[in-house]
Amino acid sequence: VVEGQSIENLIRVLMAFPGVGRRSAERMVYFLMIDPSKRISVLTEALHAVSERVRRCRTCNGFAESDLCSICSDPRRDETRVCVVAEPRDLDAIERTGIYRGLYHVLDGLLSPLDGIGPRELSIEQLLHRIQNNRPEEILMALSSTVEGDATTSYIIDLLKSTGISLTRLARGVPAGGSLEYLDTRTLSQALTGREHIVEQ
Amino acid sequence: VVEGQSIENLIRVLMAFPGVGRRSAERMVYFLMIDPSKRISVLTEALHAVSERVRRCRTCNGFAESDLCSICSDPRRDETRVCVVAEPRDLDAIERTGIYRGLYHVLDGLLSPLDGIGPRELSIEQLLHRIQNNRPEEILMALSSTVEGDATTSYIIDLLKSTGISLTRLARGVPAGGSLEYLDTRTLSQALTGREHIVEQ
Repeated sequence: VVEGQSIENLIRVLMAFPGVGRRSAERMVYFLMIDPSKRISVLTEALHAVSERVRRCRTCNGFAESDLCSICSDPRRDETRVCVVAEPRDLDAIERTGIYRGLYHVLDGLLSPLDGIGPRELSIEQLLHRIQNNRPEEILMALSSTVEGDATTSYIIDLLKSTGISLTRLARGVPAGGSLEYLDTRTLSQALTGREHIVEQ
Repeated sequence: VVEGQSIENLIRVLMAFPGVGRRSAERMVYFLMIDPSKRISVLTEALHAVSERVRRCRTCNGFAESDLCSICSDPRRDETRVCVVAEPRDLDAIERTGIYRGLYHVLDGLLSPLDGIGPRELSIEQLLHRIQNNRPEEILMALSSTVEGDATTSYIIDLLKSTGISLTRLARGVPAGGSLEYLDTRTLSQALTGREHIVEQ
């Protein structure tokens, strides 16, 4: 952009977002500049509201607009189950399935020693406290099937295995719509190991 | 997103941007929420700076951070040529070529009677004033090759043809990388003419 250090700076700020390249950032700025006083203030106010209102839920560490999030404060949710996720976005993804009716716990990341993320950087302490106080029947580990995800699941399972609580994790196998010929060996191995009975004999 | 009317609202504001769908908007919000107090304030400050500093150039109607934009106030630019563009982004695109060293005039759109955009909605009056005062030697019409672009070029050419100023427009023809076999007849026809004088003086 020819004109304006402030426009160039805004473009750079927008380019820091995931999936936003220079072209998209420029298009966004041009869009704002069509009616800048109105469009900038609409965006600024939306940002301000998020900044003022959104905090972390005292219980599950997910996003909340009050002390407790809408899930933790919903009496219809099954309090005996806690699903452990890495990020609020994972919680949203699971909610969209409509299948799970229990509560959540948001770790705020995955263990990654190389990036300096150890147990203290995650809300693991808070999870243990919560389990001690509420004694759920099931802890469902819903972390990514990656090195970090698996390491974090193992770490938490080690802490909980003596509690007598049922510890589960998401099924691994063939994704919906996945053709066998394109599946990587690891996925296929997991699908074989975890094979399910169609007809139980 | 499960939680937060304010998050949902911010997602909707971001979805109004061109090329930003629900998924991208959600990713942007999740990115902000990783370190909300810092990231939201960086973005808000960048928006604030644009909103405070960027205005329209008094002469060419492009973006400017002072009374005159950096092009209009640059003594090395060729003042005898004025390139007429629809939007500031078109000005940027032409600047990126590095070929053109004259001045610009930003119309702020194209004539489009169906959308209620007539000559008064564009900075045509300002262009005529400017031409009267500065008597450039060439007006280069650099509008899109669309119905609206062509209509706007014709309208402005009609107003200027009696001035004796050389009136030109961008060459039409084969785009860079375009194979002749895939070109439509209209483009190919136009390619037979090149950058042409509309009124030869």
